[in-house]
Amino acid sequence: MFHVPPVSHALDDAIRRAIDGKTKPLGALGVLETVGAQIARIQHTLTPRLRHCRLTIFAGDHGIAAEGVSPYPQAVTRQMVTNFLAGGAAANVFARTNGVDLQVVDAGVAGHSMEAPGLVSRRIAAGTRNCAVEPAMSPEQCEEALSAGEALGAAVAADAAAFGEMGIGNTSSATLVAHKLTGAGLDSLVGRGAGLDDAGLERKHAILDRAARRTAARLDGQDALREYGGFEMAMMAGAMVGAARAGAVVLVDGFIAGAVALAAVRLAPALRDYLVFAHRSAEHGHGAVLLALEARPLLAFDMRLGEGTGALLAWPVLKCAAAMLSEMASFESAGVSGPV
Amino acid sequence: MFHVPPVSHALDDAIRRAIDGKTKPLGALGVLETVGAQIARIQHTLTPRLRHCRLTIFAGDHGIAAEGVSPYPQAVTRQMVTNFLAGGAAANVFARTNGVDLQVVDAGVAGHSMEAPGLVSRRIAAGTRNCAVEPAMSPEQCEEALSAGEALGAAVAADAAAFGEMGIGNTSSATLVAHKLTGAGLDSLVGRGAGLDDAGLERKHAILDRAARRTAARLDGQDALREYGGFEMAMMAGAMVGAARAGAVVLVDGFIAGAVALAAVRLAPALRDYLVFAHRSAEHGHGAVLLALEARPLLAFDMRLGEGTGALLAWPVLKCAAAMLSEMASFESAGVSGPV
Repeated sequence: MFHVPPVSHALDDAIRRAIDGKTKPLGALGVLETVGAQIARIQHTLTPRLRHCRLTIFAGDHGIAAEGVSPYPQAVTRQMVTNFLAGGAAANVFARTNGVDLQVVDAGVAGHSMEAPGLVSRRIAAGTRNCAVEPAMSPEQCEEALSAGEALGAAVAADAAAFGEMGIGNTSSATLVAHKLTGAGLDSLVGRGAGLDDAGLERKHAILDRAARRTAARLDGQDALREYGGFEMAMMAGAMVGAARAGAVVLVDGFIAGAVALAAVRLAPALRDYLVFAHRSAEHGHGAVLLALEARPLLAFDMRLGEGTGALLAWPVLKCAAAMLSEMASFESAGVSGPV
Repeated sequence: MFHVPPVSHALDDAIRRAIDGKTKPLGALGVLETVGAQIARIQHTLTPRLRHCRLTIFAGDHGIAAEGVSPYPQAVTRQMVTNFLAGGAAANVFARTNGVDLQVVDAGVAGHSMEAPGLVSRRIAAGTRNCAVEPAMSPEQCEEALSAGEALGAAVAADAAAFGEMGIGNTSSATLVAHKLTGAGLDSLVGRGAGLDDAGLERKHAILDRAARRTAARLDGQDALREYGGFEMAMMAGAMVGAARAGAVVLVDGFIAGAVALAAVRLAPALRDYLVFAHRSAEHGHGAVLLALEARPLLAFDMRLGEGTGALLAWPVLKCAAAMLSEMASFESAGVSGPV
């Protein structure tokens, strides 16, 4: 089911030569050259194009929020969905500024069903169960979330797909998913999320420790999502797979999207080659997740907001990397002398 | 002459409160909050706007190129001007992609005068003298370059002004300027420029050591530019001052633009508050320059190309930082609950 076709490496040498022939000292565009080559591989061309990026924000609530793992009340998930739809959140502002279009998906916000113009409803349930004491979702719910996400990802109809999330408590959820997938200790993963103080952090650590003891030390991608994930996370994992299968570059946001990407790569290993990591989050656990993915993110802005905000900031960098290959003159075409 | 009005700090508290009231956890936008506050200070408003950025690329040749400090022949400066005018250089590609308009200034390219549609001619001379053996320019030439730059900067007519350079040999020039301004040893400043090998690096070090011994250990901003700078560098220094005086945010590119910014800040200390540092260059000496400016650049892409390419990549980040203040909803306006 969750299959992604491997990217072809047939053009790798030609891509390298094309980049080295551009009017610049060898290697002088650094990371842009690496990313440009990756995009060229994904699009299987020496003249890649990135014209259109779509950000999909998945919103869902978490049973573990009842344990007091976040300084914000659970109602904020729903309030922020309304804020996204009204265009007032950071993700809206960055998306408008950088020419990215944005859709919002209710993957399972607590309370009654949300009906609002522009909202895509894929509700699995009114929030997950409390993963500190029981699996966050049933096997059927997890399958349903993955499938719904996969269909949304496949339908993204853009050169690049970025994914964001909103869900009070979801740094806890992502921490547990990362813990079960990487084997990294909770000490290296538990962070302050939306802004816990020292006492709150200590309490969160104890709650997550209890939650983690409920299951085996290591879990596979799907079980980690089912036991500890949120509906917004499972749906995002499916969407990453669907978007990559459709040939899109997949822009991975911060800590939560990173944990999701790790789960998705465990489901479909070839997905890894479609992922561009947007930024290094200030959230404590992101380093361990990036290490497990052997990922070096483009940006490091000490951000920890989610919503896809890091991915939105990275989008112009990807566009420039692709345009470098498609549009830059070569030494030969421009009549510029090489090194003597 | 080179005066920049200090930015006012009257709104600092109000700017902080406006940012903290936005719908996001406190501090969650990290560096974007710092940059947004800086832009708000420069524009003296709680709703700053960045709509238009202009990149000015100054081109000039360097007498020290005759010593063999670059792997590229001097003719490349002129060839790259032609490439800029034809739209084929990395700076053109990034400028088009990110909606920045670009002008090219002949500040003193070697050889005959260049006439080409779109080229702004402010030639001081056909390249500087060899600063390894004599001052790169006369006091009059330095004044003329600074003044011409200041007028160009003042006329930039954009919310943000970015500056790039092209000049074979100008990492040598910038290294010497930085050496005389910071007092940092040549060991911590001399780098491979456009791609010297080990033997080339050793030779460059010896040449720059000889050049440095010609003058006092420390020089002021104008003398450093006059003794070791290029016309493109002195003109850029003037342009930074002119643009800041006109109220523009000044985007500083990499190593060479950084050394120029340092010289310009010595001429007009209040300029510092108008500078946003775009990226950390892979060129060895950039760290010492950034340290002297107490600057933390936005991006780190292992780039070392110049032309303003780093500044162009940072421009969308600045736009997002300004839009965050102008466009994001507050907890109050969006009806989102704060921490419990």
